[in-house]
Amino acid sequence: MALRAAGRQSLVDTVVEALRSQLTAGEWQIGDRIPTEHTLAEQLQVGRNTVREAVRVLVHAGMLRSRQGEGTFVVSTTDPGDLMRGVQRAGIRDVLELRIALEAEAARLAALRHRPADLERMRAALDAQADLSDADGRPDSGNLELYADHDIAFHKAVVEAAHNTALTATYGWFSSSVREALVSALDDQAMPKIVHDDHRAVMEAIAAGDPEAAERATRELLEKPKRAVEALLDDGR
Amino acid sequence: MALRAAGRQSLVDTVVEALRSQLTAGEWQIGDRIPTEHTLAEQLQVGRNTVREAVRVLVHAGMLRSRQGEGTFVVSTTDPGDLMRGVQRAGIRDVLELRIALEAEAARLAALRHRPADLERMRAALDAQADLSDADGRPDSGNLELYADHDIAFHKAVVEAAHNTALTATYGWFSSSVREALVSALDDQAMPKIVHDDHRAVMEAIAAGDPEAAERATRELLEKPKRAVEALLDDGR
Repeated sequence: MALRAAGRQSLVDTVVEALRSQLTAGEWQIGDRIPTEHTLAEQLQVGRNTVREAVRVLVHAGMLRSRQGEGTFVVSTTDPGDLMRGVQRAGIRDVLELRIALEAEAARLAALRHRPADLERMRAALDAQADLSDADGRPDSGNLELYADHDIAFHKAVVEAAHNTALTATYGWFSSSVREALVSALDDQAMPKIVHDDHRAVMEAIAAGDPEAAERATRELLEKPKRAVEALLDDGR
Repeated sequence: MALRAAGRQSLVDTVVEALRSQLTAGEWQIGDRIPTEHTLAEQLQVGRNTVREAVRVLVHAGMLRSRQGEGTFVVSTTDPGDLMRGVQRAGIRDVLELRIALEAEAARLAALRHRPADLERMRAALDAQADLSDADGRPDSGNLELYADHDIAFHKAVVEAAHNTALTATYGWFSSSVREALVSALDDQAMPKIVHDDHRAVMEAIAAGDPEAAERATRELLEKPKRAVEALLDDGR
């Protein structure tokens, strides 16, 4: 199989694409050692430097791992870049539903596993938000970016209080990809304003060690913007 | 800031690391245009080819995007490779809890949004599993890999029946990273066997359009292996 760079795409990108296709098609399984640089260069009829560069791209993406003196091994057959692009393409309703899934379960676990420092972080984030609010409790329009940071800090503190590495890693990635959406929602008069008491209810249920109440309070908090988005979508039809 | 390659690490890896640090530290925000290749090469005191290679790595990772004639822009400030490595490092209990979070909510939504083809895919996966089971309903030990594939296909069909792009993308990535754990659990006599009736209960609640029952059935299905893992962890202490 000889590869030719298509149009503007560089030869390295073409080799990345070829290797990625083999991985996502399951032709190489997790744990397999892939062919040597030399073999791949022959198979694809490209230079070894091109293969080396392409392998590096996939190592950084978390799909391959090189072990000194042993070769290069498959660690994942799914492209994390695809995951990121998939979530970035999702609508706001979809993203809120993913947040509900992760955060409602995290709040339930946080009620059982939180430590004093977790509650401190939630409280600090809410106090900082209160300082940026006007008399109505609406975020001060000059500070939306900072307000959003404190909001995300509160939700991350809840998730981290579950003390689950997999939830924390997934949410940590995810929370930065929704920050933009949050800032624009804060500025949108059609969206419900962020209610402090709703956030405090989540923190208090966690502090009280009540998993059902913590899950319920989290759902209530996130179902409000979800319903607002659904109403806007319905109006637009 | 002049960069030196540290030890075995290549200069490209060092530049990738430098750019990634700027991104994850939030020095460049989502939507920002990063400095030109020329400027970065001067700042980092490396060649333009090295910068070009490093940028390519981050484009493939989904953190940057190049627009012809406009420059290179930030699309994410979180490294998806970190996410993948984080979940890979998580223990089996943590991964089961992440699955419960995603699948219980997906089952709830699937009860409201499933289409006939979704139920067909669930049914086909369960029938295929039944064909690979012995008289006891335990997976036939010669076919664990194939059995695991059908199990994952069932759970993916449930998640996809929620018709939510963000949930599907997250779960799709995630399901391939847990396949290995599933195969070893199937082979482990200390783990509870997979019960067909529990899976059918999920499918029937979805088919009946009952979100609460669908969520409950999914929790019951996944809490069993979670409790088994917790008991094993407790024994080990």
